Amino acid sequence: FTLSVWRLKSPPRSSSRARGGGGAQALAGAKLTPLSPCRTLCRPSSTLLRRKMAGNDVPPRRGKVLTVDTMNANVKKVEYAVRGPIVQRAVQIEKELKEGVKKPFNEVIKANIGDAHAMGQQPITFFRQVLALCSYPELLDDNKFPEDAKNRARRILKACGGSSIGAYSASQGIDCVRQDVSRYIEHRDGGIACDPDNIYLTTGASDGIVTILKLLTTGEGRTRTGVMISIPQYPLYSAALAELGAVQINYYLNEEKCWSLDIDELQRSLEAAREHCRPRVLCIINPGNPTGQVQSRQCIEDVIRFAAKEHLFLMADEVYQDNVYAEGCAFHSFKKVLFEMGPKFSSTVELASFHSTSKCYMGECGFRGGYMEVINMDPEVKAQLTKLVSVRLCPPVPGQALMALVTNPPQPGEPSYAQFIAEKTATLNNLAQKAKMTEEILNTVPGIRCNPVQGAMYSFPRITLPERAIKDAKAKGQVPDMFYCMKLLEETGICLVPGSGFGQKEGTFHFRMTILPPTDKLQTMLRKLKEFHQQFTQQYS
Amino acid sequence: FTLSVWRLKSPPRSSSRARGGGGAQALAGAKLTPLSPCRTLCRPSSTLLRRKMAGNDVPPRRGKVLTVDTMNANVKKVEYAVRGPIVQRAVQIEKELKEGVKKPFNEVIKANIGDAHAMGQQPITFFRQVLALCSYPELLDDNKFPEDAKNRARRILKACGGSSIGAYSASQGIDCVRQDVSRYIEHRDGGIACDPDNIYLTTGASDGIVTILKLLTTGEGRTRTGVMISIPQYPLYSAALAELGAVQINYYLNEEKCWSLDIDELQRSLEAAREHCRPRVLCIINPGNPTGQVQSRQCIEDVIRFAAKEHLFLMADEVYQDNVYAEGCAFHSFKKVLFEMGPKFSSTVELASFHSTSKCYMGECGFRGGYMEVINMDPEVKAQLTKLVSVRLCPPVPGQALMALVTNPPQPGEPSYAQFIAEKTATLNNLAQKAKMTEEILNTVPGIRCNPVQGAMYSFPRITLPERAIKDAKAKGQVPDMFYCMKLLEETGICLVPGSGFGQKEGTFHFRMTILPPTDKLQTMLRKLKEFHQQFTQQYS
Repeated sequence: FTLSVWRLKSPPRSSSRARGGGGAQALAGAKLTPLSPCRTLCRPSSTLLRRKMAGNDVPPRRGKVLTVDTMNANVKKVEYAVRGPIVQRAVQIEKELKEGVKKPFNEVIKANIGDAHAMGQQPITFFRQVLALCSYPELLDDNKFPEDAKNRARRILKACGGSSIGAYSASQGIDCVRQDVSRYIEHRDGGIACDPDNIYLTTGASDGIVTILKLLTTGEGRTRTGVMISIPQYPLYSAALAELGAVQINYYLNEEKCWSLDIDELQRSLEAAREHCRPRVLCIINPGNPTGQVQSRQCIEDVIRFAAKEHLFLMADEVYQDNVYAEGCAFHSFKKVLFEMGPKFSSTVELASFHSTSKCYMGECGFRGGYMEVINMDPEVKAQLTKLVSVRLCPPVPGQALMALVTNPPQPGEPSYAQFIAEKTATLNNLAQKAKMTEEILNTVPGIRCNPVQGAMYSFPRITLPERAIKDAKAKGQVPDMFYCMKLLEETGICLVPGSGFGQKEGTFHFRMTILPPTDKLQTMLRKLKEFHQQFTQQYS
Repeated sequence: FTLSVWRLKSPPRSSSRARGGGGAQALAGAKLTPLSPCRTLCRPSSTLLRRKMAGNDVPPRRGKVLTVDTMNANVKKVEYAVRGPIVQRAVQIEKELKEGVKKPFNEVIKANIGDAHAMGQQPITFFRQVLALCSYPELLDDNKFPEDAKNRARRILKACGGSSIGAYSASQGIDCVRQDVSRYIEHRDGGIACDPDNIYLTTGASDGIVTILKLLTTGEGRTRTGVMISIPQYPLYSAALAELGAVQINYYLNEEKCWSLDIDELQRSLEAAREHCRPRVLCIINPGNPTGQVQSRQCIEDVIRFAAKEHLFLMADEVYQDNVYAEGCAFHSFKKVLFEMGPKFSSTVELASFHSTSKCYMGECGFRGGYMEVINMDPEVKAQLTKLVSVRLCPPVPGQALMALVTNPPQPGEPSYAQFIAEKTATLNNLAQKAKMTEEILNTVPGIRCNPVQGAMYSFPRITLPERAIKDAKAKGQVPDMFYCMKLLEETGICLVPGSGFGQKEGTFHFRMTILPPTDKLQTMLRKLKEFHQQFTQQYS
């Protein structure tokens, strides 16, 4: 019995692999994997082999239990560009700058992620006062805090086990917070009823989205659940689908018409998908991420009609519902439009809508607060959902408290009202101004074309790349817009995400840029970007 | 074309199903599912059927997209007893009490879940002061707060984007918090090095456990990943394995020897499992949940040797590491024992260890703070892990801040040190006292036999149930210990979890009871439990 039944893979993929093991030095760096047909047969003999190789008590050198070759294959397929290689390089560059390495810039500007506070946006005072009171209730005796903040804190604490935000809450979320959420939705939707039983608090919107997708994923091969997502998309969706092993069905937004959604394109995409999977879900992001469009009421109605006709479960990602800037645009919730379409739709179409504390005027990403509302969900499935979320015990309670404040902010007549409104308005106005500025400056650059940033926090401009740049990128094994963004980062310190991370029409190139940096920094950044693009174009022409 | 190719299931499982839809009333309550061989063929005709059934624009009555029959089958298999039917009934009873319904008791005592604050345990003052300061940094100017609390808050805030805990952190967790964690581990383990790069902050320990299990789950049929878990177990494990579709391999703890772990039993269980799956993982909970045992150093060494010999990935759930009460017992971390066994083990055995802010003397469950340390993980797999966690952006930042405080509490000489130590010691002493009292009182009851509660927060006594009770339970379709616990709840208001929710040897019955209620309430509860058990035994004998 010799090594001949083992396949020797050499050299190892990563030099650090050799570090891992002790044992037989002669084999260091080589990777042993049994030939698969022999795997089961080998087992009794392998004990013998181990003894021969390693002697008495030494654990045999069999390599790791968990390697990239033996790990969950779905996880390997997961990609998440918003925190991908370009961001890792940005973090590295920041470290280099700290260590005194000379660069043609002094700081990295991270316009890759919708992280408002990191870009200097200030939290809402009232929210933070209440959170401090909830964290350390001794402050309730402090006359520095306004009465309404204290009352909110008392109400939240009363709803917590042992009056502590350190207690677990109900898995679906604290009752009174779910009531706040449901009143908020009713108010937002002009009085359409919202049952707190349909509200699930979540760990950010991502958690809710993944949970609903999980419920919906079944089948194998051609019966596998297909999920329609927009291209460009927010890569949480593609990542979750890869992990769950569901089939991603792409429908393309119409860049020429300001990233609008055409029902014909939905239909085309659906028909094509039916050849190889069972489409069951339609996901919409409105206002759009990464594309910044705001859907018209008519479009939403058409989408709902389409979902009803094609028997699709609707998922509406509405986390940017306060982020609407453009003249003539308004946020219409899927729930409201659904109910305005009358009972033949409102009593049948299954809808889950998601919201978060991370975006809008709050930008409280770190608290991981969120909720989802499920409409027309089968009661038995709802029971399964409630069971499923109970395994993770509960969403973070500080995030739940924050969600209570977002959905039940200071009211007219309360001491904190004026300041709350002033802060909220200032933040949203500032974002609106930056949205406009971003569009305007980008459109002055030959070779960059930017749709209006109607809402959300991003622009997703199209960039024209010279043929030679595309060739050079391919020679380096890089997607051309990654090549572009990486060069931009190295030369200017500006960190953007290549369009390929979100998906785009074959042969087109884009990047996603947040509008979140402070106005002056954003302006500098756009100027630098303009210069870079001109130089880049010249260099490769 | 008629209904004959459809299978009519009737009556519906739940009466509420009928409420869902409008449309053809004749079919209300009936459930249509196409016969499976015909599924694909039917598609074109079903359009016709819909038109015939529903007419023009009305969405056809096809039932829900998402039903229990068409949902993710793995999710259906998930069970989580700690928040199962008995707890749902307890919540209902609480509501009934509030509404004035007469019961033989005035309040529900929830001894079903390790939720310390809900049971009246007080948070550590220092932790909450720092959290309040982080939430509302204006308080840094307040001279009410001790300097060390302010310094900790400043340090945490400085490490946050925009100095706000509302910013996203790095997906692996805030750098300086991971450094605190690694110094804590080094100190705990007598100086054995800990690399902050091996630390991942998590959303409670559950999040980390599920993530590692996810990486390890592969294969189909007989090559499916098998995961060894103790019986009795904490049902997060069985739930996660069901959801992931991994194979649960049971090894039984030895109740006769104070719930100890026998290597022979591990071997037996492993050999049996190899017939139908590929065992790759061994999970240990120490101190034990639900069984409250503390493993000896020798036992841990034997387990590590076993894992090395059998090529298993070790998962050590060590969230109760401060909860050790019994004379002669001490907590030994798997990491420490592994490294003390010398490089032939410490450089090969793959280990993930989990900790949490929810247990020990903190009991801060609501913050969902946690960490895991991964040892000897293949660097490429680590890169995959980092990518995977980035999709959910980051663990809740308040929970990360709390973890920084737990692992870097006030030091001797700092203003908050004395109070911190006093509070921590009082809480742990109180728990030790209640552990002892629980064991003592339970063992006075004929028909209840309780092992010493050496650690953690639970006792898991064995109960003898009369034959007639077992028969009656089975007649009602209930597991006998569920029948027992449900009766206990209805008659006394005490909420425990039946042993069957954790797994137990065939023919034995147990319940899990936390030792968390305040001493006087715990005493009352144990007295009531004693009376109930005697009465129950009498009634069914």
